[in-house]
Amino acid sequence: MIESNANAQIKKIQKLKKSARFRRQERLFIVEGWKMTEEALNRGLVRSLYFSVSGEKEYAGRLSGYGREVPSEILSDRLFSELTDTVTPQGVLAVVEMPQYDRAQFAHSKNAALLCLEDIQDPGNLGTMVRTAEGAGMAGVVMSKRCVDLFNPKVVRSTMGALFRVPFFFCEEITTDVELLKKEGFTIYAAHPRGQKMFTEETYSGRVGILIGNEANGLSEELSNLADKRVRIPMEGQLESLNAAVSAALFMYEVHRNRR
Amino acid sequence: MIESNANAQIKKIQKLKKSARFRRQERLFIVEGWKMTEEALNRGLVRSLYFSVSGEKEYAGRLSGYGREVPSEILSDRLFSELTDTVTPQGVLAVVEMPQYDRAQFAHSKNAALLCLEDIQDPGNLGTMVRTAEGAGMAGVVMSKRCVDLFNPKVVRSTMGALFRVPFFFCEEITTDVELLKKEGFTIYAAHPRGQKMFTEETYSGRVGILIGNEANGLSEELSNLADKRVRIPMEGQLESLNAAVSAALFMYEVHRNRR
Repeated sequence: MIESNANAQIKKIQKLKKSARFRRQERLFIVEGWKMTEEALNRGLVRSLYFSVSGEKEYAGRLSGYGREVPSEILSDRLFSELTDTVTPQGVLAVVEMPQYDRAQFAHSKNAALLCLEDIQDPGNLGTMVRTAEGAGMAGVVMSKRCVDLFNPKVVRSTMGALFRVPFFFCEEITTDVELLKKEGFTIYAAHPRGQKMFTEETYSGRVGILIGNEANGLSEELSNLADKRVRIPMEGQLESLNAAVSAALFMYEVHRNRR
Repeated sequence: MIESNANAQIKKIQKLKKSARFRRQERLFIVEGWKMTEEALNRGLVRSLYFSVSGEKEYAGRLSGYGREVPSEILSDRLFSELTDTVTPQGVLAVVEMPQYDRAQFAHSKNAALLCLEDIQDPGNLGTMVRTAEGAGMAGVVMSKRCVDLFNPKVVRSTMGALFRVPFFFCEEITTDVELLKKEGFTIYAAHPRGQKMFTEETYSGRVGILIGNEANGLSEELSNLADKRVRIPMEGQLESLNAAVSAALFMYEVHRNRR
């Protein structure tokens, strides 16, 4: 049983939680709780498992049937709760390999609808968008380089498992990738406060990309100029904008509605 | 200039930020930043103003024209940044009286659509719902007693000012209030994973109440049994549910769409 936070494995977990750069370098991240761990186990992505004393009693028995053996350790309850952000920790966390997707995989599908995100900063927003993307049946999520890290623990938690089920792609330069999508036959829609048409007036047929911009500044001029259509969400009252995850959800479900 | 956090006014601000009970007792809360302060000034709700040294230079000149004189203090920049949660504080915060609404005010309107929330726990979710409620033109937001406090600083911030523009009502017992709404001619729709109809199949005519449940547990049996109709949002993939603020947004904008 590990009891000290000076243990090398514990230090690595802490660094994987804190540092996006370390996560990228190791291609690893941390998931907490049984559901997320199970998703990762199902995909053969778990590198190592950590239980609290009580967590081990509850979950260790469920480990058979996930193929290859995964190394696991038990931590004292005190040390475990020190490691976790959740208010009621479930007593299990895992070091997990990042899922990898080939860009061709989702861009080549016939009626692919992609959510393209420019510089989303709030972890809860990004996680919620990935979660909603699964619900709305999007083919994938494309992220600009300055989006908050998808493997940030708060983002991971708020995806509610969708992180393992929605393909994603990180852009070196999102304008280049959106230009490429256009060449591949995608119609690009920008969620824009000065759009001519309402979002409910489009039919979103064929391959579609939806551009959603940064929470404070919206889409950059450069990116929204690339859009084939600028479309807006109507707003009553004196509101300047909707929350980015809400805008994204309304657009994604509008695409979904047109495809059912 | 106030420089010490032992100052009685500073202690009161800190307590108003931390304690929901103290806020209720004093009927006061804290807003940060110029936009929110301006909203409160416009409504004559500001009890006192606090500037950082740099904030005073920028904003004090804008104070004329808001009617009655508001007492203000300047804080050292160090003390000001200690008080604020925002990463880039704007140098102004205000002690503000809670807006008050008469229940009759929104329940008596002819086509009122109300968002009714049971035990929403996440401050970002509640704030986002109030923000979206303004955008979708809802007549008000009704909250159960165990919702996170509407005047929690994180909730206030994420409403983006809508807190001052969307009427709200706190229930002692939400089932009693929903029963009352039904007697007043409201048709009650529950967002429910086992709803018979899709949310896009209803027309939401006349007076409407939309019930949204707690993030982890959904709606209580008791409350969803009161609904006239249970309606669901379609979900692809293996998702168990959508984020509560996303579900609420989809419903509210569906109501809006049917009323345009």
